[in-house]
Amino acid sequence: MNNKTIDELSIGDRAFFEKTVTEADVCLFAGISGDMNPAHINQTAAENSLFKGRIAHGMLSASLISTVLGMYLPGPGTIYLSQDLRFTYPVKINDTIKAEAEIIALDREKCLAILKTTCRNQNGKVVIEGKATVKPPKTKL
Amino acid sequence: MNNKTIDELSIGDRAFFEKTVTEADVCLFAGISGDMNPAHINQTAAENSLFKGRIAHGMLSASLISTVLGMYLPGPGTIYLSQDLRFTYPVKINDTIKAEAEIIALDREKCLAILKTTCRNQNGKVVIEGKATVKPPKTKL
Amino acid sequence: MNNKTIDELSIGDRAFFEKTVTEADVCLFAGISGDMNPAHINQTAAENSLFKGRIAHGMLSASLISTVLGMYLPGPGTIYLSQDLRFTYPVKINDTIKAEAEIIALDREKCLAILKTTCRNQNGKVVIEGKATVKPPKTKL
Amino acid sequence: MNNKTIDELSIGDRAFFEKTVTEADVCLFAGISGDMNPAHINQTAAENSLFKGRIAHGMLSASLISTVLGMYLPGPGTIYLSQDLRFTYPVKINDTIKAEAEIIALDREKCLAILKTTCRNQNGKVVIEGKATVKPPKTKL
Repeated sequence: MNNKTIDELSIGDRAFFEKTVTEADVCLFAGISGDMNPAHINQTAAENSLFKGRIAHGMLSASLISTVLGMYLPGPGTIYLSQDLRFTYPVKINDTIKAEAEIIALDREKCLAILKTTCRNQNGKVVIEGKATVKPPKTKL
Repeated sequence: MNNKTIDELSIGDRAFFEKTVTEADVCLFAGISGDMNPAHINQTAAENSLFKGRIAHGMLSASLISTVLGMYLPGPGTIYLSQDLRFTYPVKINDTIKAEAEIIALDREKCLAILKTTCRNQNGKVVIEGKATVKPPKTKL
Repeated sequence: MNNKTIDELSIGDRAFFEKTVTEADVCLFAGISGDMNPAHINQTAAENSLFKGRIAHGMLSASLISTVLGMYLPGPGTIYLSQDLRFTYPVKINDTIKAEAEIIALDREKCLAILKTTCRNQNGKVVIEGKATVKPPKTKL
Repeated sequence: MNNKTIDELSIGDRAFFEKTVTEADVCLFAGISGDMNPAHINQTAAENSLFKGRIAHGMLSASLISTVLGMYLPGPGTIYLSQDLRFTYPVKINDTIKAEAEIIALDREKCLAILKTTCRNQNGKVVIEGKATVKPPKTKL
């Protein structure tokens, strides 16, 4: 594990985390969040819906963004200040989601970094897009 | 379970979901998201950090907002379009978080509802604030 | 979330909860209950059994009845006094089970409600039938 | 692992299974069952309730009975036909529950066994009592 202070960050820096969203993940996420929406837990109802099957919770895919920020860029010690999310495409069970973050602005005085955050499925389709604001760690790990 | 079409929604409508964020929730969330940031899973490191102990993933608390929108207001059939989140205060393990949503704008032509979304801890302290945009269900459950 | 006192209940009132019983659910249920019966956790043994494959724990499906009673009818604050269960048909992994409760008797003096409780699979086949006795909540949420 | 055919069973035969019901068990059970009743998942609400704290789902303790029947007496191959449950005392998180089954009747012609089933907490207090009817396995493991 590694982390970067604001002085080590540059515009254009990128990192990603990629993971298959399994049925077990969706079942557990339903339990943690309490979100028992039929779209996520009821195969019969979900098949009869717009999405033609169960979909993952949007916040489950969004949580992969937090993984990138907190573990890789800037990494441990980062304070997560805000996140905008637009859910642009449904995530099916067994989709493999790649969450990517790219630094698009730095305010070295206030110690703030703004990152473009994008989640794509295994076909490259954007499923979430948005921006994060973080305070990078003051000290190295 | 119940849901509301756009014609049944009014500005000022509210709903909430409340849950204790347990250590088990944080461990499972770490596994689902892959977010193994020491702040969440390393008690020793977390005690020596700014937060003086392990904190829950911000997206875990944010996921309770999705529970309110997808299960209660507007409820099953809702399409989640976007969410803004500002993480304003850390959530410790065993905090009880109340996620509340309140309709603040309706565009009946485009079938869109905007909700103010707020998460508070057991002391009433705001831990997340933001806004959600959803497309309410077209048909009743 | 909502609940009903005994004065708000009538004979014939109904509610349901429906969920797909996934492999993850069965694995986790085995861990929680300690019920490592090969019928639930051993695919090889289960294929050679009467049921020709793994089946879900009967109590897993029965737990959906508790969801209906505790969350919807009568809802939070309900005290669960007794439950009779007859397991009439096996539940396979990935079956979608609908648990339904219907009030069939009310004793307003003793503050007791009796409900017929039925679980059906996605083909309408009854998998559990029985009766529950509950004490509805004294106060509204 | 071992099992018993009806010819090997006698009235008075007993077996038990004992397990601590942890917070993690309750969190996972809530997710599997969908039962997000505040009594189980909301520490703040639960402290203000009759029970003065979070309690386990009644069906979670009941599932330990199924463990005894399906794993020990009569063991693998048993078909679970029915179960009566009376919930006589609340189970708190971290209680250690001992589920015991004792054969009280045998119908060798119809190949049926009736067992008295009792769950007690670490203080010996009965938390669930009832009866199970099972069809013991036809063949040895």
